[in-house]
Amino acid sequence: MKELKTPSHKGFIMPKNIAVGIDIGGTHIKSALVQENGHILSKKKIHTKKQDDSKEFIKSLIDLINHYKNETTGDYDLIGVGIGAPGNVNRESGLVEGAYNVPPLQNVQLIKELKPIINIPVYVDNDATNATKGEFLFGSGKGYDHLIGITIGTGIGGGIILNRHVFHGITNYAGEIGHMIIIKDGMMCSCGNRGCLEAYASTTAMVDHARQLIKRDHKSLLQSYNPSEINGELICKLANEGDEVSITVIQTIGYYLGLAIANIVNLLNIPIIAVGGGISDGAPNLFNVIESSANEHVLPKLRGTFQVVKAQLGNDAGVIGSASTVFMEGESAY
Amino acid sequence: MKELKTPSHKGFIMPKNIAVGIDIGGTHIKSALVQENGHILSKKKIHTKKQDDSKEFIKSLIDLINHYKNETTGDYDLIGVGIGAPGNVNRESGLVEGAYNVPPLQNVQLIKELKPIINIPVYVDNDATNATKGEFLFGSGKGYDHLIGITIGTGIGGGIILNRHVFHGITNYAGEIGHMIIIKDGMMCSCGNRGCLEAYASTTAMVDHARQLIKRDHKSLLQSYNPSEINGELICKLANEGDEVSITVIQTIGYYLGLAIANIVNLLNIPIIAVGGGISDGAPNLFNVIESSANEHVLPKLRGTFQVVKAQLGNDAGVIGSASTVFMEGESAY
Repeated sequence: MKELKTPSHKGFIMPKNIAVGIDIGGTHIKSALVQENGHILSKKKIHTKKQDDSKEFIKSLIDLINHYKNETTGDYDLIGVGIGAPGNVNRESGLVEGAYNVPPLQNVQLIKELKPIINIPVYVDNDATNATKGEFLFGSGKGYDHLIGITIGTGIGGGIILNRHVFHGITNYAGEIGHMIIIKDGMMCSCGNRGCLEAYASTTAMVDHARQLIKRDHKSLLQSYNPSEINGELICKLANEGDEVSITVIQTIGYYLGLAIANIVNLLNIPIIAVGGGISDGAPNLFNVIESSANEHVLPKLRGTFQVVKAQLGNDAGVIGSASTVFMEGESAY
Repeated sequence: MKELKTPSHKGFIMPKNIAVGIDIGGTHIKSALVQENGHILSKKKIHTKKQDDSKEFIKSLIDLINHYKNETTGDYDLIGVGIGAPGNVNRESGLVEGAYNVPPLQNVQLIKELKPIINIPVYVDNDATNATKGEFLFGSGKGYDHLIGITIGTGIGGGIILNRHVFHGITNYAGEIGHMIIIKDGMMCSCGNRGCLEAYASTTAMVDHARQLIKRDHKSLLQSYNPSEINGELICKLANEGDEVSITVIQTIGYYLGLAIANIVNLLNIPIIAVGGGISDGAPNLFNVIESSANEHVLPKLRGTFQVVKAQLGNDAGVIGSASTVFMEGESAY
């Protein structure tokens, strides 16, 4: 991390480092101006215009960055822009592959396009990895040397921080926790393999599981909702209200997440795993279930050596995480 | 790694760095004098006297080290002693926990006991981790930044090298690949959990599997051996001779090892996995089976991004690996 600029003792106040964090998603582009202590100065959210061509898309990002540039007073020094996107990111050019939810991102080399125009450093990384960086610097990972971040959504993403550095792997795919095979010859996953964690513990899997239970004549509050309204967050909400089907679903995904986490702890012997994503807020019991399943499945000698915690940055994980890329960049060559 | 001392240009030949590598096992203590290029200058193997008390045991190690000291001529500079032992090692004191096969090691702080007497640096680490270091510096991992080493024996051990440094984890347990749960509610493992890789792919599991196949009326060359003679190496040998039961056993362990390796590649996106241990020599087809199972189970985008290879150091893995600890120590603070 770059050295924090602190007020000088000669009466001249040094400007504070800030960064723009941009999180590109399928429906919205969220952004924020973030201080080096993780504090958000201002936010802005725009719609992802899927029909845009690449040029219009880049133009909208430049407008966003210029908005923050204009907002930056002399008290602050805007040291960079961090961008997170779903998919596999080439961190040199900023090319994002596999971001199928965001068609205008196809074949765009974000760093090469943006940097010459905005004239400040631009860093691009995978969105789940960025969320883990934010959690490491400003959330539940603060003070630790190692952190695994798991983000649960329609898929399951992950990020890995070892010895205070992001571990990207040789082709920037490290952290594909969602595709750990936890059930041999198990359920079909969107990746084409069978038995992946994602097929058992994503919000998509939660909804499928709830529907199956209802089909098998289990009564549930979920039945009073339109099928299209049933999602991970609703299941969490109803679990908190005592709905048995929803509770079973939460217990099931917690069990499988714990099994996967045990395998990670056996391999890496890390002290903390932060689980985030939309559902983590609504399911206070989920973390007990995950931790107890992880302790059940981990090598007995490793029981109690790790914690499973809720990611703390919540809805701001994406933008704070993206800005964190800027603050961590000094060390990210590792 | 410490800088290689190369011959000076002033006609004075600089001594070459060498290290003693000691590998403590349940039946033998293997040792060697190893050059910084991995070349072995001399070897010595003594019996592990299980009835020894700690003092006698330490005395035998000191005798061994002094033997190499006396052997070291002025052409060489003996820069340290590296020791490998089965179990969990405290790398500060050299205390080895869980080395049940070597009773006199109990409660011995190897570094604290040896260093004041032999007056050169002593480093102690887990034997599977050391084997991975040797493989990284001088074997199949040469030239890579990351390497996972898997050692198959009566148990399954592992070592992790990321960015050219050993990753030990917070309590030195990183690399417990043998206890990755690959079959939920599967076979009982020696650790007390169910479904661990070790319960499916160790040499113990191989022998169990072969016995079960024979019980189920499969004909095998193994039946002409005394049951106590049946071990992993024999099964490999007979598989090479076309024995169908033995071939099935090799294919089965290869399948499960590949599944576990796929999970590791999904998590860490590393380029190479070296598999060693007694059986790897005798089973040339094993590596094709492992690699094909790993490619089948890994995230499709990661297929072909990694290799599964045979560990190259063979029987010398333990002693060269232990000596490698000395050569890598300059960076092992990481």
